[in-house]
Amino acid sequence: MEQIRQRNKTRQFFLKGLPFGGNNKIYIQSMTNTKTKDVEATVKQIKELERIGCEIIRVCVLDKDDAYAIGKIKAQINIPLVADIHFDPELAIIAIKEGVDKIRLNPGNITNKDKIKEIVTLCKERKIPIRIGVNSGSLPKDLPLSAEGIVEAARRHVEILEELNFYDIAISLKASSIDLSYEAYKLAAKTFPYPLHVGITEAGTSFNGLIKSAIGISKILNLGIGNTIRVSLTDDPIYEVKAAKEILKDLGLSKGFPNLTSCPTCGRCQYNMIPIAKAIEEYLDYVKKDIHVAVMGCAVNGPGEAKEADLGVAGGIGEAILFKKGQIIRKIKEENILEELKKEIDLF
Amino acid sequence: MEQIRQRNKTRQFFLKGLPFGGNNKIYIQSMTNTKTKDVEATVKQIKELERIGCEIIRVCVLDKDDAYAIGKIKAQINIPLVADIHFDPELAIIAIKEGVDKIRLNPGNITNKDKIKEIVTLCKERKIPIRIGVNSGSLPKDLPLSAEGIVEAARRHVEILEELNFYDIAISLKASSIDLSYEAYKLAAKTFPYPLHVGITEAGTSFNGLIKSAIGISKILNLGIGNTIRVSLTDDPIYEVKAAKEILKDLGLSKGFPNLTSCPTCGRCQYNMIPIAKAIEEYLDYVKKDIHVAVMGCAVNGPGEAKEADLGVAGGIGEAILFKKGQIIRKIKEENILEELKKEIDLF
Repeated sequence: MEQIRQRNKTRQFFLKGLPFGGNNKIYIQSMTNTKTKDVEATVKQIKELERIGCEIIRVCVLDKDDAYAIGKIKAQINIPLVADIHFDPELAIIAIKEGVDKIRLNPGNITNKDKIKEIVTLCKERKIPIRIGVNSGSLPKDLPLSAEGIVEAARRHVEILEELNFYDIAISLKASSIDLSYEAYKLAAKTFPYPLHVGITEAGTSFNGLIKSAIGISKILNLGIGNTIRVSLTDDPIYEVKAAKEILKDLGLSKGFPNLTSCPTCGRCQYNMIPIAKAIEEYLDYVKKDIHVAVMGCAVNGPGEAKEADLGVAGGIGEAILFKKGQIIRKIKEENILEELKKEIDLF
Repeated sequence: MEQIRQRNKTRQFFLKGLPFGGNNKIYIQSMTNTKTKDVEATVKQIKELERIGCEIIRVCVLDKDDAYAIGKIKAQINIPLVADIHFDPELAIIAIKEGVDKIRLNPGNITNKDKIKEIVTLCKERKIPIRIGVNSGSLPKDLPLSAEGIVEAARRHVEILEELNFYDIAISLKASSIDLSYEAYKLAAKTFPYPLHVGITEAGTSFNGLIKSAIGISKILNLGIGNTIRVSLTDDPIYEVKAAKEILKDLGLSKGFPNLTSCPTCGRCQYNMIPIAKAIEEYLDYVKKDIHVAVMGCAVNGPGEAKEADLGVAGGIGEAILFKKGQIIRKIKEENILEELKKEIDLF
């Protein structure tokens, strides 16, 4: 039933040893919202994000203190670190020398051409890829707000790197409109041979933004386009990573993660199910097994409707039944549901 | 840029005066999770859901007390009321006599054929439509778990109604797999001339379920299929309605609702933006205007990136700037941002 997507062909390169682009894995990335110069807070956040499944992390480099923090951060984390730099080439040079794994930089925004050459030379020596990130909100004034305008903005940056024989390029083209993003990525996939970083920008909070990102990113991924995704939310970046994981799982694009089925509670539900479903969801965030768990409201429909699940509970009055692959195993008292279900997940 | 969808052609009928099916509006529906017999709690929940944008509400009818509550509930609410009935024809007959606006009932599950005739005759007299709701978890044992199996299960129920010359039918075909749901709705749209009620069942919590529902429902709506949607979440049904509104807005399928843009907070953000974005999102839930509001982290990128917004704020240190259509209007102290932005929304 799963749909076969023909992945978009792209160049490939390595990002801190990770094969990137082409038919390789679609990596989950996020961005810290700490001050980068606050090394302790930044490392703490990165480690939390890494633990929940973040595979590439970006930090904002606003000044030299941020840039000089890169080395100290790198020393304490495992996933590739990307420095987000605007306008100031010196910050890029420091970040590179500090050992950053990738930079996000739009070379067209740097007026000093010698500085661009210096950055590109350093990136070549150290095999550091560059992401060009175009945002629909900050297009050059001569370009229209359209897919063509966004792709042309990216092309201008790309050309600068290509003229310097630099090709380890990733590109993003973010808009806050789903349709505009979709058309821009579709056109970019035809225009450039480079891997694409997919996201919808300024999507909103972890409710509305979650919906918009899920619709937009899935529509683009369903074209076979995308080599890394970032869900941008106005919230703790933990939710960005959780959401990205969920989108990839829902599209059958990532394996080895758990899947939770839970029914909408209705008048048939006889126990306090919502907190149990939420607690199990949180528990599963840190489980790296291909397990399907169900939390169902009623014993009448529960085991049947969730018969695909490896493991599940369905509530009764003051108790629940535990079932495996649709077969009822035993009864559990309501107060022990959470604990027993966690145990069963661990044993699986 | 908005994509033109050719709406799937269907029969049309009226649901408590609302034109339903065909090219009519795609209605937002939800289901209460109170005990239906608890009239006070049920009416309270329905009124909250109605206030936030719910257009059709379903209640679970498990026994005669629930069925006899229908009239009392109807007397206190404005939106159409649907009774969800399984197996027991007597409950349907009571609900209809109590004045329910629509019933959800699978006639194939009722063994007494005279009772089906009685229900259908009553529905015809009172112009009450019937929704047939097939769920992938409870297919007849002789049918495969596939789009064909699900549509065949629906067809068996539909035939019973058609033989009694009853055609005010809506159909749902829910699965918890996105791909299976998508294929089933696509096949159903070709097979039946009836309006379709779209949803993904047992999607999960208001985080994971939100993502799965957004991906699945949008994919089906993008085919031009769907006359009403329900987002099923293991949470307060308020979130189901908010999510449904958001999905329709994101696809350009509903007008007259506000739109919030907010950037992901990053290290550039100098004020406590997340609570402000969330509070504005909640405020906008109850605003019925076509207004685009932006809550942005930094004054450097904010007004430019959100220049499409009618109204917005972008933070500085201890203050924010208020902008309209990309033009900066005035500064606001951090502690007054929320209040001033709400005032501006009211004035718009």
